[in-house]
Amino acid sequence: MTDSDLAFASIEQIGRLFRKRKLSPVELTRFMLARIEQLNAKLNAYLTVTAELALAQAKKAEAELFAPRGGKSRRDRGPLHGIPISLKDNIYTKDVRTTAGSKILKDFVPEHDATVVAELKEAGAVVLGKTNLHEFAYGVTTNNPHFGPARNPWDLSRIPGGSSGGSAAAVAAGLCYGSIGTDTGGSIRIPAALCGIVGLKPTFGRVSVTRVVPLSPRLDCVGPLARSSGDAAALLDAIFVRRKKELPLRRATKSSSRQGFRLGLPKTFFPEVLSPDVSSAFEEGVRVLRKQGAALEPISIPLVEETEDAGNQIAWAEATHCHEQAGWYPARAKDYGEDVLTRLDMGAKVPATTYLKAMQLRDSFIEHFHATMARAKLDALVVPTTPVPAPKIAEETTAVCGTNHPTRALLLRNNRPANLGGLPAISVPCGRTTEGLPVGLQLIGAVMDEALLLQIAQAFELARPLLHPPLA
Amino acid sequence: MTDSDLAFASIEQIGRLFRKRKLSPVELTRFMLARIEQLNAKLNAYLTVTAELALAQAKKAEAELFAPRGGKSRRDRGPLHGIPISLKDNIYTKDVRTTAGSKILKDFVPEHDATVVAELKEAGAVVLGKTNLHEFAYGVTTNNPHFGPARNPWDLSRIPGGSSGGSAAAVAAGLCYGSIGTDTGGSIRIPAALCGIVGLKPTFGRVSVTRVVPLSPRLDCVGPLARSSGDAAALLDAIFVRRKKELPLRRATKSSSRQGFRLGLPKTFFPEVLSPDVSSAFEEGVRVLRKQGAALEPISIPLVEETEDAGNQIAWAEATHCHEQAGWYPARAKDYGEDVLTRLDMGAKVPATTYLKAMQLRDSFIEHFHATMARAKLDALVVPTTPVPAPKIAEETTAVCGTNHPTRALLLRNNRPANLGGLPAISVPCGRTTEGLPVGLQLIGAVMDEALLLQIAQAFELARPLLHPPLA
Repeated sequence: MTDSDLAFASIEQIGRLFRKRKLSPVELTRFMLARIEQLNAKLNAYLTVTAELALAQAKKAEAELFAPRGGKSRRDRGPLHGIPISLKDNIYTKDVRTTAGSKILKDFVPEHDATVVAELKEAGAVVLGKTNLHEFAYGVTTNNPHFGPARNPWDLSRIPGGSSGGSAAAVAAGLCYGSIGTDTGGSIRIPAALCGIVGLKPTFGRVSVTRVVPLSPRLDCVGPLARSSGDAAALLDAIFVRRKKELPLRRATKSSSRQGFRLGLPKTFFPEVLSPDVSSAFEEGVRVLRKQGAALEPISIPLVEETEDAGNQIAWAEATHCHEQAGWYPARAKDYGEDVLTRLDMGAKVPATTYLKAMQLRDSFIEHFHATMARAKLDALVVPTTPVPAPKIAEETTAVCGTNHPTRALLLRNNRPANLGGLPAISVPCGRTTEGLPVGLQLIGAVMDEALLLQIAQAFELARPLLHPPLA
Repeated sequence: MTDSDLAFASIEQIGRLFRKRKLSPVELTRFMLARIEQLNAKLNAYLTVTAELALAQAKKAEAELFAPRGGKSRRDRGPLHGIPISLKDNIYTKDVRTTAGSKILKDFVPEHDATVVAELKEAGAVVLGKTNLHEFAYGVTTNNPHFGPARNPWDLSRIPGGSSGGSAAAVAAGLCYGSIGTDTGGSIRIPAALCGIVGLKPTFGRVSVTRVVPLSPRLDCVGPLARSSGDAAALLDAIFVRRKKELPLRRATKSSSRQGFRLGLPKTFFPEVLSPDVSSAFEEGVRVLRKQGAALEPISIPLVEETEDAGNQIAWAEATHCHEQAGWYPARAKDYGEDVLTRLDMGAKVPATTYLKAMQLRDSFIEHFHATMARAKLDALVVPTTPVPAPKIAEETTAVCGTNHPTRALLLRNNRPANLGGLPAISVPCGRTTEGLPVGLQLIGAVMDEALLLQIAQAFELARPLLHPPLA
């Protein structure tokens, strides 16, 4: 196996090598740390590398996995055992600084792990470090004013997207085997799409957000970024609340038991702003799905246009409330980056009646979404994750068919609906533009349908294999 | 039995007379309708009297109750069977106009009953009519600009309190055997206290608010007004959601199984604004409780001072939101009374962050309240329901110890905590001022403790028998 093959191997492949003792967790962790050492200066994907802790975790994993079979010190914790991963830096890590990409928390060292971190450690994962993000996860570029911009491994002059931009860049560049990010308006799926990887936002409430720096508590979700649906399933499996009798997520991604998915292709809103290069890649993706036996039904989703403004109003008001409660806003206004401060100021001006109207729209949207899906017997909606590929760093507006759009709004628009609806959604690589930039295809499901989305994504992946960025 | 004895008999007494065939539901309904005919012009307690419907319901009850024992048309629906009651006019009644005390809904005739009305009818209650209220239940005086003020039976120049003022006046004057009101900030307990009757606000969510004109959906509660705890229990029993294994409410009020209640006497907030005459009556009430074997523990309830502003902010914002959603505000601004319009305007100006902060205060208050009660092993708090007896009609401010207070804020302050906390609370008659005006004593309990509150109230009532207003 070449270094590149090893760096981009799947979690399952690594697990097999471990169990055949052809690879050791310590060896692999050293290999990853060396890659980070070599490539992170270019990407600025990691803000903190926890080399010593990672090696200690890897040694523990190795001792458990490599102990004599049948011996009492032997323990196999499952698919993530000994797998090096990264964590977005707004997720609390005990004794490891957790900056949330901010000046305000630059020296914050939590006393406890976030619930998801405790769960990942229990599953035997090795934490390589904490990844760069948009300041306080409140933006989609990861052009971080305090720690420098994270860069897209496919083109270093471009953003990786955000807010989980460092996570996506690290996963795409083979600097970890998966990462845990957060998604309030698209912050997992947007960078996954722009970096050509898989990003899954689970159903609202299905993964703990305890000790994750809050942004908008009624929208915030924690979820995985990975290079395949199988890897994403392995990560999600360790952190999410399972229903009784539910299929294990990993099994859901194995050679699918079901064929012939029914997918809804929205006729309105999603296709209305779309760059020609994303449009071609997306249409090719849809052709692939059709060839695989999926039925694609043109569909209109009621109220979907309204999700954008409603999502903004809720996020603005709640973010400002959270920062007020923390005592940061407005007291430390000068310590915020300009764009985040502008949004916090906007949040202070949202009237309560507007907020309540948005919450009511949320309820109606959820109701209509599920009614529409059930009536048309759909397994998921298929939409482009973002209307454009990765914009250049610091490009505040992006042109689509000759019209300039604010970059932020453009990247968010197709992602907000799943946040407002509390719906699970996954972005999978769909192809590349003529410039070679990745395009993401998003599947949006009914609540609790993570396993179904992973099945569809897995089938799609077989026909659209992952490409690695030239950098790595 | 004299007419007055009959008018002020308990629901249980009436039930016994029915079952001994010493009184018929139709006869009783005619008697009540005659009293309303005679006294309502003075009190303006009823906005709509449904004489024909009431007589039809009474006939049905009579047919069921008086059918030969063992015969198949015989049916005993329990304590409310054949009992004439009234409903606050913001509770939907099928085919009977439901004005909410407003000009905007003056001709509104619902197609369906509210859930509580359906439940009361199922329990066999006879509905005499719809009672006056503060416009849209959004105020505490029932000085209604569209239908005229409801008047206090103890002194016609004074308010009955509100917003369920017509209900309280009707119950106190013997114009029904109980009424169903709503309570968002004290709207059941305030008029109960000012009219010398019992008013119970249940735990938030425990009684349906379906098809009740909403005011502030996160605070609104529906509950009974009655002349005794036993009567209140009989009414509540018909409309509330019971836990498995919970004692029937009516049994809870029978000669108490428990003695020696532990009651918390707040040291702060509640005693801070209190007129001398209410103070004396309240202290006498506390002496009675002590003599009955209750332990009274001085206690501080954290955050209780903050409930006033938090409750206001939530109610203001949500009321304006509800009226916006209905299309009434601001479109029909000129059709509102001046005070309600002023509050709706205030609600439009509440920032979302203030609303969210108030909602967070609510969560903290609930947590602290229950922790404090559990730590001190308290059954309930005891406080004066209102710091003053019934003010004169249209008195915008009321003096307490030489300081003028806005009447509205004064009447609300001791009641908001239970609304913000979603807590059950009951106001029971505690005595009278030297001027002869009723004073209310409020018991506030932990969530779901309605039965316990009714037990305490029942014991208290034995020593503080109900007085009837001179009018009747």
